[in-house]
Amino acid sequence: MNNAGKPMEESLDPENWELYRDTGYQMVDDMLAFLKDIRSQPVWTKPPSNVRAFLQEELPRGGRPLPDVYRDFLKNILPYRKGNIHPRYFSWVEGTGSFSGALADFLASSMNSNLGIGDHSAVYVEQQVLNWCKQIVGYPSSSAGAFTSGGSVANITALIVARNAFDKKQIRKRGLKGLEAQLVVYCSTETHNCIFKAVETIGVGTDNLRKIPVDEKMEIDLTLLRNQIDIDKKNGLIPFCLVGNAGTVNTGAVDPLSEMAEICRKEKMWFHVDGAIGALLNILPEYQKILKPMTEADSIAFDLHKWLYTNYDAGCVLIRDGESSRSAFIQEANYLAAHERGLAAGPESFSNFGLELSRPFRSLKIWMSLQEHGIDKYERLIRQNIKQAYYTGDRIKQSPDLELLTPVSLNIVCFRFNPGDLPESVLNELNKELMMRLQEKGIAAPSYTFIHRRYAIRMSITNHRTITADLEAIIENTIILGRQIIKENEKYGTYSPAL
Amino acid sequence: MNNAGKPMEESLDPENWELYRDTGYQMVDDMLAFLKDIRSQPVWTKPPSNVRAFLQEELPRGGRPLPDVYRDFLKNILPYRKGNIHPRYFSWVEGTGSFSGALADFLASSMNSNLGIGDHSAVYVEQQVLNWCKQIVGYPSSSAGAFTSGGSVANITALIVARNAFDKKQIRKRGLKGLEAQLVVYCSTETHNCIFKAVETIGVGTDNLRKIPVDEKMEIDLTLLRNQIDIDKKNGLIPFCLVGNAGTVNTGAVDPLSEMAEICRKEKMWFHVDGAIGALLNILPEYQKILKPMTEADSIAFDLHKWLYTNYDAGCVLIRDGESSRSAFIQEANYLAAHERGLAAGPESFSNFGLELSRPFRSLKIWMSLQEHGIDKYERLIRQNIKQAYYTGDRIKQSPDLELLTPVSLNIVCFRFNPGDLPESVLNELNKELMMRLQEKGIAAPSYTFIHRRYAIRMSITNHRTITADLEAIIENTIILGRQIIKENEKYGTYSPAL
Repeated sequence: MNNAGKPMEESLDPENWELYRDTGYQMVDDMLAFLKDIRSQPVWTKPPSNVRAFLQEELPRGGRPLPDVYRDFLKNILPYRKGNIHPRYFSWVEGTGSFSGALADFLASSMNSNLGIGDHSAVYVEQQVLNWCKQIVGYPSSSAGAFTSGGSVANITALIVARNAFDKKQIRKRGLKGLEAQLVVYCSTETHNCIFKAVETIGVGTDNLRKIPVDEKMEIDLTLLRNQIDIDKKNGLIPFCLVGNAGTVNTGAVDPLSEMAEICRKEKMWFHVDGAIGALLNILPEYQKILKPMTEADSIAFDLHKWLYTNYDAGCVLIRDGESSRSAFIQEANYLAAHERGLAAGPESFSNFGLELSRPFRSLKIWMSLQEHGIDKYERLIRQNIKQAYYTGDRIKQSPDLELLTPVSLNIVCFRFNPGDLPESVLNELNKELMMRLQEKGIAAPSYTFIHRRYAIRMSITNHRTITADLEAIIENTIILGRQIIKENEKYGTYSPAL
Repeated sequence: MNNAGKPMEESLDPENWELYRDTGYQMVDDMLAFLKDIRSQPVWTKPPSNVRAFLQEELPRGGRPLPDVYRDFLKNILPYRKGNIHPRYFSWVEGTGSFSGALADFLASSMNSNLGIGDHSAVYVEQQVLNWCKQIVGYPSSSAGAFTSGGSVANITALIVARNAFDKKQIRKRGLKGLEAQLVVYCSTETHNCIFKAVETIGVGTDNLRKIPVDEKMEIDLTLLRNQIDIDKKNGLIPFCLVGNAGTVNTGAVDPLSEMAEICRKEKMWFHVDGAIGALLNILPEYQKILKPMTEADSIAFDLHKWLYTNYDAGCVLIRDGESSRSAFIQEANYLAAHERGLAAGPESFSNFGLELSRPFRSLKIWMSLQEHGIDKYERLIRQNIKQAYYTGDRIKQSPDLELLTPVSLNIVCFRFNPGDLPESVLNELNKELMMRLQEKGIAAPSYTFIHRRYAIRMSITNHRTITADLEAIIENTIILGRQIIKENEKYGTYSPAL
């Protein structure tokens, strides 16, 4: 190894930069044309077997020119994308991204900043956008937090802070085994499973997570919650954290946050709000009343790749008491010691506010998009998506072949094809087949859930590209496909469960 | 909210796509010119107060054209970057990224895929690159894992798997409080602080983390380790996890992994390797012998934004027993239930293998870079960086004004300016001042650490752009600046500690 001769000088930089300019231009042209005409393309196309085989090839030993590699991207990767950039994509809760956002990611990746530590512009941008997020959800400037890769990590981070803030902060040193009693976490049965993951991660265990049933509005039942807390206290357990939903993933329901905050104050529990679905609605005046109690929470998790339509990834966690946030994570190390000047001076490391040390420049695309469009436009776009959900709900109610399975809530529409006279089991099979065909034919990509054991086609409209014609298209094609599937099965004289 | 009228149709898409083409071309031109000429620019420039003020402006209500926003980026953000794209950047352990990588990120961001779930090309690319990573570190194809945002999250994820695999997997349900005895984790004193964060995260607590002293090679002392395990067992504690370093962050030392693996087999402990610094060295035949025992570890964490020079972010965690990985995280939910066809079919969700559900398409840039350059080129580049470290070490040894503080190890050089006859306290102050001036003048960006209480200027050469002239430049300027600082202080007739 010890070779005192002059080392070689090879690099990943182009030998001929001009060729890379052409490829860069070509990529701009192609991505622009692709996104401009996205509506005319199928929402989703299954990756065929030859593509899957291509994507199992061995690690290449030698290289080849970037334009060759790019051709493979165009041929084998781009056409079989997930589809969430399409105006008729309504699956799960996934945002759309934008062309400007992709350009911003190109700039961020060119800078290639690691925001873990240091005095450099990206850190100030990140702080600025974090402050804008505080303002959006109504948190004080003294709160703290960080961007994360998504809602799950944001929620998990919040629960780590909650746990580490317990027991006068001794828990970081002593762990959970030494606690005098078992900690208990509470949430509704409609809570996203990342909270279950979080309760496992922090070492409390899901046996000690109480999933409280919901009422007919799909909101946590406060009487059952209070009773459960009393029972646990009587049994010598320690109720320590309550998780509320500002918009559930299934139906968009908002838990009674004000009453939950009151319970937490009384019981000295940490109040966390999962705002992945609803927190950003706080920029709409008509939602500020219902969401205002969110500001009483000790922590909030949400993500901007949903309703700010930011390109992935852009999760965010905020902790009301900035000092709790900091004391949950701060570590000491020689190699991270701050200096008064130079690169290692500057703002406190983001690693003191979350799990990550190395972290990418996630906020540039958010910063550029908010500068380009302004928050007022996002207010209009979110309202537009909500109106689209209600519009779709009304169109479903008008259609004798369709059934709305829950009232429209926020931007979420759960419905099914139901021409009448079919048993529930057949309806479930039929609608599953129908949902898969909508996707397979590239018509639209709703997702699905079960509402009271009924298979529901679920639309979550978090999509700045959707227009009314897209909503009409999914309604119309659901009816056409539903009738077609029934017809196919009438040939067999029965509604076979194996459609 | 319930408004049956036709909703508005506004979007984030350009009204005039052609204008965005021009901006996109301009960005390609600018980033290309910027990276092509990066050597002639200062490594780092402190963000001035007017820039910091600009980056504290309020959330914009209205928007403005993208070219305006881009001008602000060029003026206020790009010039004050961290600098790790520069050939004379040697701080911490941060990779360089590449122009091709930035283009790949533009493509990934245009696709805007969320890899949490679904049957789409990005998921197959991610699996393929994950398989390539297994091959690189010598793991079997039956192992499992995921890309993460960085080394910290990769290490934390591995320790969550280790803990959840304990106790016949009951710990996810029961938590740590119910365990019959306290779990204990072991590592060397040279271990990265993300392991301390991980031990806190999983609820074991740092009181139960044994930081075992290192020998003169900065490797964990096996005798002390064995003694400590015996003591803990005698005290009724449960040694459950040992963390080895494949390259420490301070000096690049590789712990005796084979002996550590043996101890873990004997004691039935989980063996985790933090390979952030060294795991990728396994592509170099001359390092495969020392790193081979890495393959006996139950888990490995590393990141490709270090020694694969990948643009941020690109962490990776691998778990030898794929089933342990899966059983650590898998959750059930209606809205994630897989279907046999359609978008929700396809490979098992990556959320079963880590903390994230939503996740960005991190692997496209790795895939494209490995296709473009081939792994053999990375082998040469890593070797080049190591030779550069030894070259620098030799040059330091030849210079009477400089002192090498530890033998060069891997790509890490720890040295100081030491013309002789100065007390240690003055040397520490002097070298700290010198290190800050190297950065402030934009000459080079090394970082720093303490070796046996001596302030060390630390170079970590993880940089495909570095050439010999860059190494000469930092050596030459260290001597010039060192002498200059001494001269300045001789004016005062003393080596004041407040330089």
